[in-house]
Amino acid sequence: MVSGLMEDLSLVNTLKVRGGSMSTGPHIDPTAKVSVDAEVGEGCYIGPGVRIIGHVRLERNVWLDSYVTILGEVSIGEATYVGYGCLIGHPKRQSLTEITRGGGVGADMSGKSVLGKRCIVRSGTIIYTDFTSGDEVEMGHNVLLREDVRVGDRSLIGSKVVIDGETIVGRGVSIQTGAYICRKSIIEDFVFIGPNCVFTNDKYLMQKMFELKGPTVRRGASIGANSTLMPGIVVGEGSVIGAQSVVTSDVPSRTVYVGVPAR
Amino acid sequence: MVSGLMEDLSLVNTLKVRGGSMSTGPHIDPTAKVSVDAEVGEGCYIGPGVRIIGHVRLERNVWLDSYVTILGEVSIGEATYVGYGCLIGHPKRQSLTEITRGGGVGADMSGKSVLGKRCIVRSGTIIYTDFTSGDEVEMGHNVLLREDVRVGDRSLIGSKVVIDGETIVGRGVSIQTGAYICRKSIIEDFVFIGPNCVFTNDKYLMQKMFELKGPTVRRGASIGANSTLMPGIVVGEGSVIGAQSVVTSDVPSRTVYVGVPAR
Amino acid sequence: MVSGLMEDLSLVNTLKVRGGSMSTGPHIDPTAKVSVDAEVGEGCYIGPGVRIIGHVRLERNVWLDSYVTILGEVSIGEATYVGYGCLIGHPKRQSLTEITRGGGVGADMSGKSVLGKRCIVRSGTIIYTDFTSGDEVEMGHNVLLREDVRVGDRSLIGSKVVIDGETIVGRGVSIQTGAYICRKSIIEDFVFIGPNCVFTNDKYLMQKMFELKGPTVRRGASIGANSTLMPGIVVGEGSVIGAQSVVTSDVPSRTVYVGVPAR
Repeated sequence: MVSGLMEDLSLVNTLKVRGGSMSTGPHIDPTAKVSVDAEVGEGCYIGPGVRIIGHVRLERNVWLDSYVTILGEVSIGEATYVGYGCLIGHPKRQSLTEITRGGGVGADMSGKSVLGKRCIVRSGTIIYTDFTSGDEVEMGHNVLLREDVRVGDRSLIGSKVVIDGETIVGRGVSIQTGAYICRKSIIEDFVFIGPNCVFTNDKYLMQKMFELKGPTVRRGASIGANSTLMPGIVVGEGSVIGAQSVVTSDVPSRTVYVGVPAR
Repeated sequence: MVSGLMEDLSLVNTLKVRGGSMSTGPHIDPTAKVSVDAEVGEGCYIGPGVRIIGHVRLERNVWLDSYVTILGEVSIGEATYVGYGCLIGHPKRQSLTEITRGGGVGADMSGKSVLGKRCIVRSGTIIYTDFTSGDEVEMGHNVLLREDVRVGDRSLIGSKVVIDGETIVGRGVSIQTGAYICRKSIIEDFVFIGPNCVFTNDKYLMQKMFELKGPTVRRGASIGANSTLMPGIVVGEGSVIGAQSVVTSDVPSRTVYVGVPAR
Repeated sequence: MVSGLMEDLSLVNTLKVRGGSMSTGPHIDPTAKVSVDAEVGEGCYIGPGVRIIGHVRLERNVWLDSYVTILGEVSIGEATYVGYGCLIGHPKRQSLTEITRGGGVGADMSGKSVLGKRCIVRSGTIIYTDFTSGDEVEMGHNVLLREDVRVGDRSLIGSKVVIDGETIVGRGVSIQTGAYICRKSIIEDFVFIGPNCVFTNDKYLMQKMFELKGPTVRRGASIGANSTLMPGIVVGEGSVIGAQSVVTSDVPSRTVYVGVPAR
C-alpha cells in the first residue's frame, strides 16, 4: 500500500475554514472557469471543473459541487446546494438544432432560469432555460426539468423524475422517484405523485393531429404508484387514485378511484 | 458581490467566432485530450475535459460538449451534437470482467460505432461499441444504448430510455421517456412506444432455461404508455395497444388491444 | 481532416503496460486528486479528473475510471471496476441541509462504505455512505444506492435502479433495469425483480401518519416486470408474481399470483 500520494485537497481545507465562524469571500477552485459576467456572493463554494458561462448570479453561500455547468442568464438563491455534474440553464431544442445545421450555438443562450434560496439540487440534475423554482425546493439525483417549468416552494422532486416543458408544479408537492410528467401538465399545491407514475398528453399516439394537453391534478390529490393519467383528464381536489390505476376520465373532488380503468 | 472573477471562457469566444461566416479549423479546448489516431474535421468544437481515445473520426462541424468521452473505433457524421458527459464506444461486459480478473482493459476496445449526420445526442447518454445510427437521430438525456443496437434515420429516443443489446430500431420511430427495450427486440419503421413501456424477453424469470427472445413491433404500430410486452410476442402492422396494457399473445395487424391481458 | 492533434493519452500507454505481466505500482493520472489519507494498492488505475477525499482504501488492481469521486471513509476490494463519473460515499440528506443553513459540509463525512472484490460498478452510479456490498456484485449504469443499503455476493443491480435507504438485498439477487426499491425493503437471496417494478412503503400517500414499511420478498421468489408491491406485504419463498401485477396482500410460499390485484 502507498499512503499520502498527493497534496491535501483544497476542498478539505475549505471545509475546515467553513466550519469556523469567520465571514469569507467565495472559494473558487483553480480548475473552475467563471465568466467575467458572473456575480459570486460571499461564502460561495465553487468546486473543481465547474464552468459558469454567461450572466450568472450566485447569492451568498451557494455551493456548486464539482463539474457543475451553468449557462446563460441564471440566478441562484442564498445557500442553495447544486451537486456534482448538474447542468443549469441547458439550451432548448432549437439551440441544438442550430448546431446540426452547422451554425454553432446561438441566440437561444438568452433564456433565464431562477433557483430559489436553500434548495437542494442533487448530482446529475439537468435544468433547462426558463425554469423558475421557489425556495427550499429539494431534488433527487438525475432529475430532468425541461424549459418553461415552474416549481413552488418546498416541493420535492424525486430522483430520475422527468418534467417536460410548459408544466406548472405548485407548493409542497411531492413527486416520487421515476415519475414522468409530460408537457403541459398542471400539478397544484400539496399534490402527491407516487413512484413511476406516467402523465400522457397525446390521445392518438402521434397517429392523428391533436393539440397536446397534459393532465391536471388539483390541490391535495394523491396519485398511487405506477399509475397512468390520460391526456387532458382532471383529478379533483383531495382525491386519491389507487396504485397502478389508469385514469381515463375526470375524477370528482374528494373521491377514491382505483383500477384499470379507474372508477 | 464580486464580479468578473476570471478570464473570459474560451467557449464564449468560440461561439462568437462560430457566429461569423468564415470557415475555421477545429476548436479544441486546451484541457481536452485527443488521441494521435483521431481525425477531426473542419469546424468541429471539442470542449473542456473531452477525451478521445482510439481511431475516432469526426466529420465537419461535429460538436462535442464538455467532458465527452469517446473510446475505440468511432465515426461521427457531419454536424452531429454530443452533449455534456456522453460516453460513446463504451466497452462491453467482457471487457470490464477482464479488469476484475486483474488483466486491465484489453482486446475488446476494437469494436466499431457509427453515429450519422446531424444527430442530437443529449447530455449523459451512453452508447456502447458496435452501435450504428442513421442520420438525424435525436436522443434525450441519459439514454443508454447497449452493444449491437441499430437505429434508423430520424428516429427519436427519449430521455432515460434503455435499449439493450442486439436490438433493431427502424426509421422514424419514437420511443418515449423512460421506456425499457430488452435484448433481442425488433422495432420496425414508424413505431410509437409510449413512456415507461417495458419489453421483456425472459418467460420464466430466470427460473428455467429459455432462449431469450424480445418482442417484435411491426411497422407503424403504437404501444400506449406504461404497457408491458411479454417475451417473443408480435404486435402486427399498424395496431394500437392501449395505455398500461399487458400484451401476452400476438396481436393481428391493424387492430386495437387494451387491458390486462390485452384483447 | 486533421490527424494526430495532440500527444498520445496516458491511458493508452497504461493499457499497454497493464497488458504485460510485470507487477506495477498504481497509475495515477496527473489530473487526479488523491487525499493524503488515501491508501492505494499496487496495480490500481486512477483516471483523469478522479477525486479521492478522505480515508479511502483501494486494494490491489482497483480501476477508477475518469471523473470518479470518492468521499469519506470508503474501502474498495481487489480488482473492482468503478466507471466514469461514479460517486462513492455520497453524503446523506442531513449533510446537504447543513449547507442550506449556511454551515458548509460537516460532520456527516464520517460514514463508511465498503465495496467488495471484483465488483463492476458502471458509469454514473451513485453510492451513499454506510453502504456495504459483498464480492462480485455487478451494477448497470446510473444506479442509485442510498444510505444504509447492504447487497450480498454476486447480486446484479440493473441500470437506473434506485434502492432507497435501510434496505437489505441478499446474495445472487437480480434486480432488472429501472426498478424502484423503496426505503426499508427486504429482498432475500436469489430473488428476481423484473424491469420497472415499484416497491412502496407509504399506505396513505403521505395523508396520514404511518410507520413506513417496505415489502419483503422471500428467498427465490420472482416478481414480473412492471409490478407494484404495496407497503409491508410479504411475497413467500419461491413464489412467482406475473407481469404488471399489483400485490396488495401477503403471498404464500411457492404459489403463482397474477393480476390487479394479484391472486
